[in-house]
Amino acid sequence: MIEEDAITARNISWLKEIETEEPVASFLNMKLIELTPGYAKVKMKLIPQYQNFHQLTFGGIIMALADQAFGYASNSLAYPSVASQFNTYFIARTHSGDELTAECRVIKSGKRAGISEVTIKNQDDKLIARATGVTIPINYKE
Amino acid sequence: MIEEDAITARNISWLKEIETEEPVASFLNMKLIELTPGYAKVKMKLIPQYQNFHQLTFGGIIMALADQAFGYASNSLAYPSVASQFNTYFIARTHSGDELTAECRVIKSGKRAGISEVTIKNQDDKLIARATGVTIPINYKE
Amino acid sequence: MIEEDAITARNISWLKEIETEEPVASFLNMKLIELTPGYAKVKMKLIPQYQNFHQLTFGGIIMALADQAFGYASNSLAYPSVASQFNTYFIARTHSGDELTAECRVIKSGKRAGISEVTIKNQDDKLIARATGVTIPINYKE
Amino acid sequence: MIEEDAITARNISWLKEIETEEPVASFLNMKLIELTPGYAKVKMKLIPQYQNFHQLTFGGIIMALADQAFGYASNSLAYPSVASQFNTYFIARTHSGDELTAECRVIKSGKRAGISEVTIKNQDDKLIARATGVTIPINYKE
Repeated sequence: MIEEDAITARNISWLKEIETEEPVASFLNMKLIELTPGYAKVKMKLIPQYQNFHQLTFGGIIMALADQAFGYASNSLAYPSVASQFNTYFIARTHSGDELTAECRVIKSGKRAGISEVTIKNQDDKLIARATGVTIPINYKE
Repeated sequence: MIEEDAITARNISWLKEIETEEPVASFLNMKLIELTPGYAKVKMKLIPQYQNFHQLTFGGIIMALADQAFGYASNSLAYPSVASQFNTYFIARTHSGDELTAECRVIKSGKRAGISEVTIKNQDDKLIARATGVTIPINYKE
Repeated sequence: MIEEDAITARNISWLKEIETEEPVASFLNMKLIELTPGYAKVKMKLIPQYQNFHQLTFGGIIMALADQAFGYASNSLAYPSVASQFNTYFIARTHSGDELTAECRVIKSGKRAGISEVTIKNQDDKLIARATGVTIPINYKE
Repeated sequence: MIEEDAITARNISWLKEIETEEPVASFLNMKLIELTPGYAKVKMKLIPQYQNFHQLTFGGIIMALADQAFGYASNSLAYPSVASQFNTYFIARTHSGDELTAECRVIKSGKRAGISEVTIKNQDDKLIARATGVTIPINYKE
């Protein structure tokens, strides 16, 4: 267990460093707020550019925020891991000006597959979306 | 059927006009290439800003592209419709410089729910992702 | 709200009566243990007939149990509702002799769509599967 | 490639033998009709016991049929493989007396994950359901 904890601690410190220069995090203005083994919290302020033709926040932006929390949480336990599948439910509408928080928790972490769950809420703690996904750990030394 | 065709034709002409000023389409550089009843094709050129900490195109960007084709195809038959659920499989990696094409086909269109399927390929016709989702028609006159 | 509560109470009493003669509940030996508005708990004892060619409980049986809790919870709030989409994650293996409990909670109930989440555990409270789905209320009087 | 073909041929012959004594196949009356590398076709005749409280075929039975085709197709290429995730869309209703055919095609087969798609139709070639899932190959010799 000591060795595994050391690996996890290394992943987390590594991911935190990486985050500061991750292109898509800057591009979509996603901020990593918290990262512990198996858990990540990411925030995003919604801007007018994220609106679709219904004058609502585009679903793809909601999924991007969910995916960012998912990627950090999954990689905090098994780095590097890539997503194989991702499923999202859109529960309530959200608009420009809202501030969304995505929290992801890993519910299964294994050497062959991981499963994680994401909750997105707005600034009033209202549930906006739920998402889940499968990640595959890629051990380069295998 | 004549009435329904007229409605569909109106939706499509409406969506085509809307697209030219849709904020997120410009922001993510997604171009609507084709739109017929129950079908939409959208293109996106991948830029360095879309990369994640694995130096791959961020999954959220792939899902955004899929969602854009999904939104247009769904709304071409039942306007306005909003997404309730969206599921994506990531099949092959893709990088900055690639040009992706998402094609969406509605496989069920009803007054209470629609189901659609999306295929994303790159410039070499390689399968990059598959996605599917449920849309709910919102009839404001109901 | 009084009217809505009355409808919900009627749904629940109705579903409880129906359950005693539901063919598939008997066939798959699924027992409704608890039913309150937006919540259902269903139990199933795994028998040798449920095993697949890996000598594990067949995934389809796990999904059937999840679907049963999902159907009751969804219909407790908006009766009748039918499933449009259902997504399952298989988290741990399970075998003949185990007793599984599925609990479903509705997280969104609306006049156009409902979203619910299911947790399946075994007799040792070990997480076996997670599932989520979309239901569409069918109001015959519409 | 010769070696891989040999492995696939061995899997298929193995699965065909196993099928004749698979408990859940008998229990749910699912018949493997065709099995080639990356493809499986399974049939099921719907009986009154499969009905739910809406007098429709229970969704769990539809998912079980889809999962059976999925399991055979996935294991024809990478044996043994287990399901990690499975997503189903219910497109049209089906009743006792109908005969359903599920066809599954593997769209990605890799050493770490496989992705497959299932189509279920009835005896009139009407689309009843679509399903997709992720399988994880378990190589015991690894």
